[in-house]
Amino acid sequence: MRSDCRSRFAFILRGVRVLVLGGDGYLGWPTAMSFSAAGHDVAVADNFSRRAMSIELGASSLTPIQNLKERIAAWKEVSGRDIISFFGDLTDPQFVDDIFRATTPDAVIHYGEQPSAPYSMIDRRHALETQRNNVLGNLNVLFAVRDLAPEAHLVKLGTMGEYGTPNIDIEEGFIDIEHKGRKDTLPFPKLPGSIYHLSKVHDSHNVHFACRVWGLRATDLNQGVVYGIRTPETDLDERLCTRFDYDEVLGTVLNRFCVQAVVGYPLTVYGKGGQTRGFLNIIDTIQCVRLTVENPPAAGDYRVFNQFTEQFSVNDLALMVRRVAECMAINVTVDSVIDPRIEAEDHYYNPAHTKLVELGLEPHPLTDDVVAHLMETIQRYKDRILLGPIAPRTKWDPRN
Amino acid sequence: MRSDCRSRFAFILRGVRVLVLGGDGYLGWPTAMSFSAAGHDVAVADNFSRRAMSIELGASSLTPIQNLKERIAAWKEVSGRDIISFFGDLTDPQFVDDIFRATTPDAVIHYGEQPSAPYSMIDRRHALETQRNNVLGNLNVLFAVRDLAPEAHLVKLGTMGEYGTPNIDIEEGFIDIEHKGRKDTLPFPKLPGSIYHLSKVHDSHNVHFACRVWGLRATDLNQGVVYGIRTPETDLDERLCTRFDYDEVLGTVLNRFCVQAVVGYPLTVYGKGGQTRGFLNIIDTIQCVRLTVENPPAAGDYRVFNQFTEQFSVNDLALMVRRVAECMAINVTVDSVIDPRIEAEDHYYNPAHTKLVELGLEPHPLTDDVVAHLMETIQRYKDRILLGPIAPRTKWDPRN
Repeated sequence: MRSDCRSRFAFILRGVRVLVLGGDGYLGWPTAMSFSAAGHDVAVADNFSRRAMSIELGASSLTPIQNLKERIAAWKEVSGRDIISFFGDLTDPQFVDDIFRATTPDAVIHYGEQPSAPYSMIDRRHALETQRNNVLGNLNVLFAVRDLAPEAHLVKLGTMGEYGTPNIDIEEGFIDIEHKGRKDTLPFPKLPGSIYHLSKVHDSHNVHFACRVWGLRATDLNQGVVYGIRTPETDLDERLCTRFDYDEVLGTVLNRFCVQAVVGYPLTVYGKGGQTRGFLNIIDTIQCVRLTVENPPAAGDYRVFNQFTEQFSVNDLALMVRRVAECMAINVTVDSVIDPRIEAEDHYYNPAHTKLVELGLEPHPLTDDVVAHLMETIQRYKDRILLGPIAPRTKWDPRN
Repeated sequence: MRSDCRSRFAFILRGVRVLVLGGDGYLGWPTAMSFSAAGHDVAVADNFSRRAMSIELGASSLTPIQNLKERIAAWKEVSGRDIISFFGDLTDPQFVDDIFRATTPDAVIHYGEQPSAPYSMIDRRHALETQRNNVLGNLNVLFAVRDLAPEAHLVKLGTMGEYGTPNIDIEEGFIDIEHKGRKDTLPFPKLPGSIYHLSKVHDSHNVHFACRVWGLRATDLNQGVVYGIRTPETDLDERLCTRFDYDEVLGTVLNRFCVQAVVGYPLTVYGKGGQTRGFLNIIDTIQCVRLTVENPPAAGDYRVFNQFTEQFSVNDLALMVRRVAECMAINVTVDSVIDPRIEAEDHYYNPAHTKLVELGLEPHPLTDDVVAHLMETIQRYKDRILLGPIAPRTKWDPRN
């Protein structure tokens, strides 16, 4: 069975069996279409928890997303290609085994986790549920890989937020340490800033263990903040669009600022606005995942790639959005609000991000044109915007 | 309310309210008695999961342990002091809140986790249950401290196994790193060697976060392997004895070797036997926890103490047990068995352990007399020993 699996890897560029966990999400769905368009066999699994979260929060995707069955039917109509789908929960061992048996994947792309830091900080229930869902779901997947697809390459989505903001350069997963005359290369120390970010740190340790002890092969993609809404495949038909969240819990900062600008809402900068993070276009997320799948690690290897293309402070982004909006004759104000998070608002930040470039990543930088294009897309759906869930409400410490 | 809590700390040496989570266990019960004997108000909580695990494994405590109600009644009879008990599960938020409200603790000593590496490696179900129980239970406790006892000192039992066996000196929780011309003090990188050890690493990250973000005060005790069976309180009455496991899953190595010697079973050394770990007497565990409680950290401080007194390799211990046994006219053979674990069998190991000494720890070293004393105690219960569960069966990789 192992040699059979290995032989499939020889044909990796001709077509691999790809299982996308969380394949109905913001990134999962465009990723699934991208692999399908490239000729790979794609299956997706999802429990639609992201859609349920949005309903819970009284929020809504800016874009008119279709349900998964409709998406898949539209994709078949547009591309002629099939995507198989499964409905279920990754914390259910039987479900996970069933989809592994049904798909015998060569690559497992694991987006299937609760993805929001503020959501994890709402209260104890949301905190516990985030770590339960993410850590146990991922652990379940590791056992399924070990027992049912031991040659498969696990591509695990992590986050740059696992590192926090240490006062030294951030490396890609590991750091060479010389200490009292001896040397070792060890996991980079982590200072995660939310219950969600903690769950990803826990995942990283679990995946590393599975590679060290069981000989699995995995790549942990410590991704920056993703912005953007359009990919070559979503552009083919409006029914193929991906979700776009702009509320304070599920929306990421640049997406939220652009929506705020379009509706004439002040850009809500948290605190001093010196918080600096890595960012990338959704197009580059998909490019990175494709490069990762096409270049699998050896058995037993645990690789970590820092997946972002540029870094910006929150203030940088607010100024950029204001500048672009003014060119579009939109008047924008920038409001500093009390930071609902507990985080450094001014700090050193210099993370490495060369490994994906070495594999061939060609970054799409964030230009004024890209921001303008994003705002134009948002304007198209302007009448769908809900203002209620935009203002920051979720505090890192509810006692303050 | 905060100032009320703080004022209680001023009387710490006169008597603190101590909540012992896992207070029916190997270490929890002697700890509870020790604090009670010293004049503190002690409550214990337990779900008896350790007793259930032993039944599941077909194993049994060497010592004839009483049930918790009987233990508490005997303690009252012997000492005249009350210990309050609660039955429940730490992953149940309502239970955790109830015991915090009922006890308003100044110190929370958290032993209440699944404590066995082999148990966590039995299969997927045991792996998932270990991380669910330990990580979510501890997270629940952190929320209860934050919301119901924010000035309380959380004393969290971790393990030296969180560090693994890196090729550099292991520090106590944090390491000063100079990297590319910049410096920071960061969490010591972790290389845990089992699903159980991973759960403790996850806990450490969660506790550290709670201190950084919510201002809790906590001490993480990265404990070595504990041996021994008697404390001043257990010696008062046989009904007060603590459990003593010697099977391959729940028994720690020195306890297991001594039992093997007494019953004429070969000492089972795993692989080369060069695996080196920190060790301490159960008396010193209790001494360390007492010193930690009596010297609480400031609000927001997350301290890590490496809690052990000496280090030995598995071969060191086998030779020591054989030497002592021979003096007692017991003939012992040492068997090297294939290591069921995946671990370095020969490695560098030099962990720091000075912080508890600075607080006043007076170590009880492992002498031949201590081993002889342990074997004599075991001989007293020789007819209770079950041979079935001693041989190593639980493999780190069941495919091998």
